[in-house]
Amino acid sequence: MNIILLNKNDFIDSDRVRIKGSRKNHIIDVLKTVKGDSLCCGLINGNMGKGIVEQIDPYSIQLKVNLITPPPAALPLTLILALPRPKMLKRILEAVTTLGVKKIYLINSWRVEKSFWQSPVLNDENLNQVLIKGLEQAKDTILPQIFFKKLFTPFVKQELKTISENSVCITAHPKASVLCPKEINQKTTLVVGPEGGFIDLEIKTLEEQSFKTVNIGDRILRTETAVPVIIARLFA
Amino acid sequence: MNIILLNKNDFIDSDRVRIKGSRKNHIIDVLKTVKGDSLCCGLINGNMGKGIVEQIDPYSIQLKVNLITPPPAALPLTLILALPRPKMLKRILEAVTTLGVKKIYLINSWRVEKSFWQSPVLNDENLNQVLIKGLEQAKDTILPQIFFKKLFTPFVKQELKTISENSVCITAHPKASVLCPKEINQKTTLVVGPEGGFIDLEIKTLEEQSFKTVNIGDRILRTETAVPVIIARLFA
Repeated sequence: MNIILLNKNDFIDSDRVRIKGSRKNHIIDVLKTVKGDSLCCGLINGNMGKGIVEQIDPYSIQLKVNLITPPPAALPLTLILALPRPKMLKRILEAVTTLGVKKIYLINSWRVEKSFWQSPVLNDENLNQVLIKGLEQAKDTILPQIFFKKLFTPFVKQELKTISENSVCITAHPKASVLCPKEINQKTTLVVGPEGGFIDLEIKTLEEQSFKTVNIGDRILRTETAVPVIIARLFA
Repeated sequence: MNIILLNKNDFIDSDRVRIKGSRKNHIIDVLKTVKGDSLCCGLINGNMGKGIVEQIDPYSIQLKVNLITPPPAALPLTLILALPRPKMLKRILEAVTTLGVKKIYLINSWRVEKSFWQSPVLNDENLNQVLIKGLEQAKDTILPQIFFKKLFTPFVKQELKTISENSVCITAHPKASVLCPKEINQKTTLVVGPEGGFIDLEIKTLEEQSFKTVNIGDRILRTETAVPVIIARLFA
């Protein structure tokens, strides 16, 4: 936890918060904070800054906060990801949140196991926890938005054009013959397939929407490794 | 499993192998292989190539193999990593194996919890399984070497000079003021600290050995995200 994330309910005054529960425990037990210490704080979807510890009791901590710094810049990337298995999904979402991705579409694909869509990881509350962990790690405040698209073809044929407007459009695919571009540092829409990859028809459907199919070398990476590697390559 | 890894005990003839157990089950149950199919195979620490399925019975599969292709190039990188918590260690080792890292030093540091050194993950057999998984994912055959260094100062002061000879020497550290170089594509020794980072004295000790302290941006990444990101940045 590199930043204490606050929500509006924590405020007891315009510049004063009282926090309880797991954040309070972390501040006391892990950070070993005492009265007078200064902590990095941020309002979810708002500014960041400092919080001075004014009071500590066993049930709560009171901070005087001064939140005037905007959060770090977001990546100009929309990530479109074939739904991975639940455990991997959690890790990928946390990782891309730390990397500054703010728009994530989780889509179906031929090789996505149907059961993945039933996972409790996809509940709003559980997803929110994962994203918050990513923000707390990265020192960021802006929650990514996540969209679910359970039908591949209608999504790609009818929605993707608008979503990817004015962006570089690429699909990462191990079998591609062209190498992924690097350091493009501009608005990008990146599609990443499931374990085992997209089937040929899906790649064709994406190519019809002007998505260029690219690889990242001979080595076949797991999605959870490939996504950070591609992001680091695109936005170096 | 993108390659079937063979060891010398699998050979029943100079160009013929018989495999059992989990690889056999994977070939039958996941790859749905039948007699006559061709599979990507590789000898551990040796060449890669094709294996034609000659016989399948419930207990074993016999392949005629032709291993004449060298494995993909390794990264010219020595990774020196403060021992992470066991679960994270497994994921990082698997990921860096897929990325082609072949030399990994796991070292102690002030913020490494002592209990991590007692983890069963560090047993030879368990480590080997993790590395094999990485190779099977990446389509590679060369096992990384892993070294344990339980004393930080003697390692850095006495051994690191030789290990890092003729290489670019960097320590990734969130508090650094210089940005990590990119696309250096040459022999590199990369040091990555524990959760919470190296303490100042450790950074100083590394700097005395000519290790430049660098960051990778404002966002603080988890080790498992940071390592692939740095590798992608260095070897684009």
